[in-house]
Amino acid sequence: MTQDNVMPGRVHKAPENFLDPQGIRTVLAQAREGRRSFIRQAFAAAAAGIAAPVALAEGNPIPSEGGDPNILKLPEHSTGLGQGVATDGYGKPSKYESNIQRRQSPGLTQTTQASVSFAPLQSLFGIVTPSGLHFERHHQGWWDIDPSKHRLMINGMVKAAKVFTLDEIMRLPSISRFHFIECGANTAVEWGNVAVPTVQYTHGMISCSEFTGVPLITLLELAGADLKKGKFVLAEGADGSSMTRTIPMSQITSGEVIVAFGQNGEMLRPENGYPLRLVVPGIQGVSWVKYLRRIEVGDMPWAAKDEAVHYIDLMPDGSHRQYTNIQEIKSVVTTPSGGQVLLDKGFYNISGLAWSGRGKVKQVDVSVDGGRNWRPARLETPVLSKALTRFNIDWVWDGKPAIVQSRAVDETGHVQPTYRQLRGVRGTRSIYHNNAIQSWLVSESGEVKNVQLS
Amino acid sequence: MTQDNVMPGRVHKAPENFLDPQGIRTVLAQAREGRRSFIRQAFAAAAAGIAAPVALAEGNPIPSEGGDPNILKLPEHSTGLGQGVATDGYGKPSKYESNIQRRQSPGLTQTTQASVSFAPLQSLFGIVTPSGLHFERHHQGWWDIDPSKHRLMINGMVKAAKVFTLDEIMRLPSISRFHFIECGANTAVEWGNVAVPTVQYTHGMISCSEFTGVPLITLLELAGADLKKGKFVLAEGADGSSMTRTIPMSQITSGEVIVAFGQNGEMLRPENGYPLRLVVPGIQGVSWVKYLRRIEVGDMPWAAKDEAVHYIDLMPDGSHRQYTNIQEIKSVVTTPSGGQVLLDKGFYNISGLAWSGRGKVKQVDVSVDGGRNWRPARLETPVLSKALTRFNIDWVWDGKPAIVQSRAVDETGHVQPTYRQLRGVRGTRSIYHNNAIQSWLVSESGEVKNVQLS
Repeated sequence: MTQDNVMPGRVHKAPENFLDPQGIRTVLAQAREGRRSFIRQAFAAAAAGIAAPVALAEGNPIPSEGGDPNILKLPEHSTGLGQGVATDGYGKPSKYESNIQRRQSPGLTQTTQASVSFAPLQSLFGIVTPSGLHFERHHQGWWDIDPSKHRLMINGMVKAAKVFTLDEIMRLPSISRFHFIECGANTAVEWGNVAVPTVQYTHGMISCSEFTGVPLITLLELAGADLKKGKFVLAEGADGSSMTRTIPMSQITSGEVIVAFGQNGEMLRPENGYPLRLVVPGIQGVSWVKYLRRIEVGDMPWAAKDEAVHYIDLMPDGSHRQYTNIQEIKSVVTTPSGGQVLLDKGFYNISGLAWSGRGKVKQVDVSVDGGRNWRPARLETPVLSKALTRFNIDWVWDGKPAIVQSRAVDETGHVQPTYRQLRGVRGTRSIYHNNAIQSWLVSESGEVKNVQLS
Repeated sequence: MTQDNVMPGRVHKAPENFLDPQGIRTVLAQAREGRRSFIRQAFAAAAAGIAAPVALAEGNPIPSEGGDPNILKLPEHSTGLGQGVATDGYGKPSKYESNIQRRQSPGLTQTTQASVSFAPLQSLFGIVTPSGLHFERHHQGWWDIDPSKHRLMINGMVKAAKVFTLDEIMRLPSISRFHFIECGANTAVEWGNVAVPTVQYTHGMISCSEFTGVPLITLLELAGADLKKGKFVLAEGADGSSMTRTIPMSQITSGEVIVAFGQNGEMLRPENGYPLRLVVPGIQGVSWVKYLRRIEVGDMPWAAKDEAVHYIDLMPDGSHRQYTNIQEIKSVVTTPSGGQVLLDKGFYNISGLAWSGRGKVKQVDVSVDGGRNWRPARLETPVLSKALTRFNIDWVWDGKPAIVQSRAVDETGHVQPTYRQLRGVRGTRSIYHNNAIQSWLVSESGEVKNVQLS
């Protein structure tokens, strides 16, 4: 059985097809020339006037005062009159950041309407993903739906089916929560010893936002849902892909499943399901149904096409696992990461992201020698349940080859596995739910490459 | 002494000059016709097909099933092929949200380069302010500075002055923290019994972001700063306003003052100081120096122009208070708020924001009868120190006039004062540091107006 047979329309292609060539070129160019890479030639250029930094640990910390004769020439922005307020009623990033984009992988699917764009994790800070850089996964393209015409129906095992307008939903008690969303297929290409070059393409199908909306349980109670016999709900989207997903009622009664209209302070973006999307914390992104138009209460799972045929795990014995929805403990170092170049030895801040669909991240350990020795990283506050957690750790690079890894543990005790451990259970032919430890090889030249330790 | 004499260039004008007439028209139009106002005519229009909601508390919850014959007609987005991924490498909000903008107040200053734009608090959710809607306060306009040419100098009482490039700063250990920034002049116009109509203009000089950068103390230590004799630092910006502000060393040694390059996951926006700004948690915005180019260590405050002449408090006895930098405990209800219209009685979610420059918000109480009775609101998680806190509380409006207020308490025990209490100490001729309780009058017609209780 080929993987093409397993996942029609979701083919596991070779990386040269999988990747957006322009995206890779840009990322590599950034790494070599740009300001944003972990450490860069801009740094070397500056060294003409400013002494090159050496390691903090060597007691001669960065940097010495510059001798650049131009440094006291006042630039125009220190003497002239700048632009006025509200030049943009809705502002945008600096022109110097225009290379920071989400990028697609044209080889992944036949059309861009049923494809993915990846978030540029190597360029992001903290835990909030800017909405403009949020990863995308569309099944039949995205729409900008008129919110005044959109409706949400609650039906099935309820006393009386209800139809809500957006205005009606926005009158109800709302909550705001930070959560990550990760596509179940994130890091998919890595299953088969294929090493995608950059973290944007290995792990870029994850983002984290502050979501605001009404707990789904509130809407179910308003419709008089049978919460005893109704063990599941079906969530249905309004786009042409007929996306439907089963959600266990137990997660809904806990209050954490949200019918969201707000994301990062404003209304959802059209690519993220405007005006309504389901937020299902800890669960793979496909269940976060966009353009949400219907919730049906039932007493058994629906085995919809996106549950029975897609988003299933091919096991080594040829069987399929279904409804493996939880995104397990996972982490990745985002700097340094594939495609970046360390131009000199010395001090670096290793930074990355960790997350667990089961709760809070408890600890992240970092190794720079391929897993022989581990040191605990600092977790930035706040550490939130089922949200991204940013970690940082100091590193003095001695200029020799190094393999940088992170390994996360969540509050339930789950530990991120090695590829050896994961493949021991799952084989190499899966697509979904790869949470293995990622390895980045730093070579003596400073180039960083994706490698897989066997 | 007139107020014009007190604050040259920062004149306390009458509201018709203070306000952006187009902004007010838009906000009022939104309130009456738009989807985003608290409750609106779109709702009434929908009631032709969908029964009007009545209060949850009345046991007949919103809404009944619709009879709209068009509801089963499939819209184009349910049958057609939408837009592809990465249509925008950097996405933007829905076209239906284009009215949600930060807006200026042309009457406030002579030029837009030395003015303010206000964030649309009435349209925001949660605690993260979208960077595109972050309030602006410029003193000589904003710039998009080439980061490869920008430098930060540390000098004064240090062993050796240092000049850092951005690359060098980004190699150092960084932290990420959520903090609010509030202009000291937020709510300034309200001191004199002037009731600005909307919350965008009363309280819109506040925003909250996740900032990433290097603790300033790290840079001071690298330069060998004298942390015993050096009791203060001066922060200086690179724009033409020669903005300089004194920061006490005690706040820096606590580690919370950050030399930030990241905001809400990406690089700072140009209007917010790209590529470097100082983050001084809990302190008025003017100290968060943008385009940061120099930190000088010294042994006494500098009494710079923006400390000796601007950003001072005129007291009732004619004296001036200086260095009153902490933004004290404050809150405001953002829905319902001025300019919005409640079109029918029944259930509403009262929502708002609270913050304190001294730490975490501990409690927010809400009154709907002008302060006679108070009920505690729900605080959304996470509640973070010196960050915005979102609160929500249920309300069933009986259709009679109501005065909606919020009163916050922080973890140090400070309580937000009434106008009577605040003016008893500070008089009515101040400009800065107005943290009084805001009152919104809901009239029988449902219109919401700004009122000041004496």
